Amino acid sequence: MAPPSPGIDRRALISSLVALPALSGTLIPLPAPAQLAPPGSVLTSWNDGPAKQAIVDFVRATTDRSSPGYVAPEQRIAVFDQDGTLWVEHPMYTQVVYCLERVPAVVEKKPELRNVEPFKTVLSGNREAIAKVPMRDLEKILAATLTGMSVDEFKAEASKWLETARDPRWKRPYTELAYQPMIEMLRYLRDNGYRTYIVTGGGQDFVRVYAEKVYGIPPEQVVGTAGGTKYGYEKDGKPFLTKEPKLILNDNNAGKPEGIHLMIGRRPYAAVGNSTGDRQMLEYTKAGNGQRLAMLVLHDDATREYAYGPAEGLPDSKVGTFPPALYGEAKKNGWTVISMKNDWKRIFAFE
Amino acid sequence: MAPPSPGIDRRALISSLVALPALSGTLIPLPAPAQLAPPGSVLTSWNDGPAKQAIVDFVRATTDRSSPGYVAPEQRIAVFDQDGTLWVEHPMYTQVVYCLERVPAVVEKKPELRNVEPFKTVLSGNREAIAKVPMRDLEKILAATLTGMSVDEFKAEASKWLETARDPRWKRPYTELAYQPMIEMLRYLRDNGYRTYIVTGGGQDFVRVYAEKVYGIPPEQVVGTAGGTKYGYEKDGKPFLTKEPKLILNDNNAGKPEGIHLMIGRRPYAAVGNSTGDRQMLEYTKAGNGQRLAMLVLHDDATREYAYGPAEGLPDSKVGTFPPALYGEAKKNGWTVISMKNDWKRIFAFE
Repeated sequence: MAPPSPGIDRRALISSLVALPALSGTLIPLPAPAQLAPPGSVLTSWNDGPAKQAIVDFVRATTDRSSPGYVAPEQRIAVFDQDGTLWVEHPMYTQVVYCLERVPAVVEKKPELRNVEPFKTVLSGNREAIAKVPMRDLEKILAATLTGMSVDEFKAEASKWLETARDPRWKRPYTELAYQPMIEMLRYLRDNGYRTYIVTGGGQDFVRVYAEKVYGIPPEQVVGTAGGTKYGYEKDGKPFLTKEPKLILNDNNAGKPEGIHLMIGRRPYAAVGNSTGDRQMLEYTKAGNGQRLAMLVLHDDATREYAYGPAEGLPDSKVGTFPPALYGEAKKNGWTVISMKNDWKRIFAFE
Repeated sequence: MAPPSPGIDRRALISSLVALPALSGTLIPLPAPAQLAPPGSVLTSWNDGPAKQAIVDFVRATTDRSSPGYVAPEQRIAVFDQDGTLWVEHPMYTQVVYCLERVPAVVEKKPELRNVEPFKTVLSGNREAIAKVPMRDLEKILAATLTGMSVDEFKAEASKWLETARDPRWKRPYTELAYQPMIEMLRYLRDNGYRTYIVTGGGQDFVRVYAEKVYGIPPEQVVGTAGGTKYGYEKDGKPFLTKEPKLILNDNNAGKPEGIHLMIGRRPYAAVGNSTGDRQMLEYTKAGNGQRLAMLVLHDDATREYAYGPAEGLPDSKVGTFPPALYGEAKKNGWTVISMKNDWKRIFAFE
C-alpha cells in the first residue's frame, strides 16, 4: 500500500487520520483461540477453498520437475506488499503513527518548531485538526521524523518505538498484527525454494527494522520507498550514513515494478497485494510467461479485522485504495482474491 | 571502479580511449598453463602469502563458532568491485567498448544522428578524435546506447554482444577475462556462508547480464550505477519497463556505501576493490565492529596483465584511479593489498 512517502495517496492518509480510534477504543470481542498447528505443517490457518488451492497448485506447478511450468530455484521470486497485505493497515499506517508520535522528540531537539505548523497542530493532539493539515505540511512531518539522523540512529529509534508502542484496538505491539495465514504462506514458499521479498510503498528503512523478526525477511529483501543517504565522517574519522530528505524510489503504483527491476532485477513468479498501489506489480508479475500467481487480499471481515474497499459497498469515488474496479480487474486478469472472512481460519497468531 | 555513468571519471575514460590497442594488437606471450585445481579445493590459484592468509584467517575468525569474531550466517555479506577487481578494466572498461560499438546500430535506427556530434566522430573510428570528445558529449553516447529500449531488449543486445565481442589483446570473450583467483575467493566465501555481492560503478543492468554466468552472482546481488525505468504497456496491453536516461544511483566513491545501504541494508564484513572509487566502500566496511576484511587489488603485473597505479612509479597527479596515496591509506587502515604479480599463481582460467 501507499504509506508515508511524498507520493502518498492523500485521501487514504487523511481518511486514516480521521478514522483512528481514540487510544481508549473499545476492544472488539475476539473469537476463541484456534488450535495450534502441528509442527512442520503449513497453511494451517487457511480454510480449504480457491485461495489456498491456488497457492498449493502454483507451488506444485513451479517446483515439480516434471511439470511444464517448472521454475529453476534461482528464478523463484515472490513479492508481497506489506501494509494491508502482511499486516493491519487500518485505520492508519503504522509508520504514520510512528512519525506523528516522534514529533514531540523532534520538537524537543528543535524548540523553534513548537509554534510552527504543522508541528504545532500535531502537538495539540487534535485529530480533526491534524486531518486537515495540507499534504505539503504532512511531508514536513515525514521529513523531520524520518531523515536528518544516521541510519543507525533511525534504526535504534524505530526499534525502541516498535517495542513499546501498542495498537489501540488490540492493545498489542504492532509487530503482532501480522496476518498468520500470510506468515504461513511466506514460509511455505520459502520451504519450496522461493525467496520472499517485501515490496512496499512504506519506508524501506522502517520496514527493514522489523521484517526479519516478524516475517523472516532479511533487510536485503525489503524493497520500499527509499530516500537517499549521505556518506560522511564523525569527528574521530569513523564513517556513517545520514538519511536525507531526497526521494530515490517512490515504491507505489508503477514504482513497484520499477523498484523490483532496480532492486531484484528479475520478474517475480508470485505477487500479493491489496490495493491500487499494487496493481502494476500484480500486472507485471502475471504478464510473465509460464505459471504466475497474483493475489489480492480483500478486507471483508469487520468482526475479526476490518471491512473496507469493495466490502463497503460504496462507489469507486468513495472508496480509497481498493475500489471495486480493482476487484473487477482481478477477476478479469485471473488474480485470486483472498477473502479474509472466508479464506482465513484465524487472522493473528495470538488468537 | 568508475565506468560509464554520468559520474564517470573523465581522466580515466579518456586515458582508456587513447591507450586502447588497435584491434590487431600484438599478443603478449602468455605463461604456460597452470595445473588445474583438484576438484573441491579452493584458492588454488593463490600463492601462499599475506593476501591468501588474510582471506583464510578472516573466514576462520568469522565462521568458527568458538571465535570471538563469529558472525551469524545471515550477516555474512561480502562486496566486490567489478572492473579491475574481478576482471580486466585496462585499457578501457568493457561497457564503454560496448557503448562505442553500439553506435552504428543506433545511427542505423536514427539516421539523423549520422552527421551529429559526437556520433559522427565515433563512427569515424579515429581514436585520437574520439578521445577529444567532451564529457558532455560522451554522456550522449552512453544515453543513446544504454537507454530508450526495454530492459528485455537491452539484456538481449548486451548478451549477444558479449558472446561475439573479443578483447583485442587476448582475442577472447570479455567474460573470460575474469580473474581466476577472485572467482575462487568468491566461491570460498560462499562455501563458508557468505553472500557475495558486486558493487560496481558500472551499469547495474550491464553487469547483471553476465554476473551469474561468470561469477555465480545473481542479478539481485549486483549493485551498480543505475538509471530509472518507466513502466508502460505494449499495444496488446502487456506491461514492460523502458530504460530511462535518469540517474538513480551513481555507485562510485561515496555512492558505494550509499548504494550498499539502499540495496543491501547491512554493512558488509568483507570488501575488495582496486581504485579510489572503492575507497569509501572499504572504509565503511572496515569501520564495522569485529573482524572485517578490506582488500585492494594492485595491478603490478605488466607481463601477465597490466601494471598501472602505484606500479607505474608516477606522482599522484599523473596516475588515474589508484594513486600512490591510496596505497598509503591501505597500509594505514589495515587494508590488505593483493599483488597480482606475487599473490596470484595464475590470472585467468584459460592460462
